Amino acid sequence: MVKNGISTAVIKRLPRYYRYLGELMEAGTERISSNELSKLMNVTASQIRQDLNNFGGFGQQGYGYNVEFLYNEIGRLLGVDRRHNIIVVGSGHLGQAIANYANFERRGFIVKGMFDRNPDVIGKEIRGIKVMSMEEIEEFIRINKIEIAALTLPKQQAAEIAERLVGFGIRGFWNFAHIDLELPKGIVVENVHLSESLMRLSYNLTTINDK
Amino acid sequence: MVKNGISTAVIKRLPRYYRYLGELMEAGTERISSNELSKLMNVTASQIRQDLNNFGGFGQQGYGYNVEFLYNEIGRLLGVDRRHNIIVVGSGHLGQAIANYANFERRGFIVKGMFDRNPDVIGKEIRGIKVMSMEEIEEFIRINKIEIAALTLPKQQAAEIAERLVGFGIRGFWNFAHIDLELPKGIVVENVHLSESLMRLSYNLTTINDK
Repeated sequence: MVKNGISTAVIKRLPRYYRYLGELMEAGTERISSNELSKLMNVTASQIRQDLNNFGGFGQQGYGYNVEFLYNEIGRLLGVDRRHNIIVVGSGHLGQAIANYANFERRGFIVKGMFDRNPDVIGKEIRGIKVMSMEEIEEFIRINKIEIAALTLPKQQAAEIAERLVGFGIRGFWNFAHIDLELPKGIVVENVHLSESLMRLSYNLTTINDK
Repeated sequence: MVKNGISTAVIKRLPRYYRYLGELMEAGTERISSNELSKLMNVTASQIRQDLNNFGGFGQQGYGYNVEFLYNEIGRLLGVDRRHNIIVVGSGHLGQAIANYANFERRGFIVKGMFDRNPDVIGKEIRGIKVMSMEEIEEFIRINKIEIAALTLPKQQAAEIAERLVGFGIRGFWNFAHIDLELPKGIVVENVHLSESLMRLSYNLTTINDK
């Protein structure tokens, strides 16, 4: 069902489709036309048709989209039909926020452990998840088949630790450190740079001010 | 110096330029060519020239870019030369992470207060920032000239509270709630949808797996 060569722009939009389809399902909606979905999501119906055409014949003329089918197909594409084991490296407030966010678990993203350098926090538990020392990380990754590491570390430590984690078998990084990680090919990095997001907000506020 | 009609793609990249230029300045670099900047940032030199041309003659043939000048100009554009007063609505782990992130303050984003519905947390202090009740929010916004609200709330509450806050004078929303806010024209919303980011990571991991 998955075609290769789907543009990054479409991929960026997929989680939003997934969210709206999930809400439609919860509300008991069985099918929806591109026009209805367009109004709901505030994008053009032609964009919706174009985007969803990437995955092959989901829509049917005169019937619209089967909500559950589309939800499941996009979910499979996003890999949320599989389980992903995560560690959180850095157990500060942001790390704790991630460990506490049970909503990720619903999507199959399971935080298995947290790690920190600070001896004061090692041994503590956050929502039943133990904070361990960095010395334990290699074995933990192997035993628990960890795929993803969320890095909530100061940027000075992030690059070095990410490199070590690649050596230990981590293939995906959810990077909150304010740095661009340079890692070998085949390793996936998804950045969440909060201060850059805040600056974009500020830019847009400033631009509107100037008008 | 600001031209109108700068594309969103360029704007999205500006905070990254700002970050690299800041690091160059800290390292004492006074000027840099587009080629050097290109290697550092891992984008093409022609993209850099195109992007920075949007702001008019920053670069000079044979000289390159004056790092400090460019840093300050982009900073002004991003509005980080001004002070932005922020409130955090929702004092859970994510709200606390935002309140604790002193790095935002360096850029002029000052968290003045936190608000919550939960009586158990009202009155507590996070890094010297008091958690107040929702009844106090209107007056607080007015007295403290609050411009931006960070929403770290369950999605069920976010829409209703955002609307109220617009009425109280908030013009910018840093929205962590997993919902698209529909607000009047002129109100700026910057979304940070963590679970969508995690799904993009998972998508990319899945795609690489399939290869």
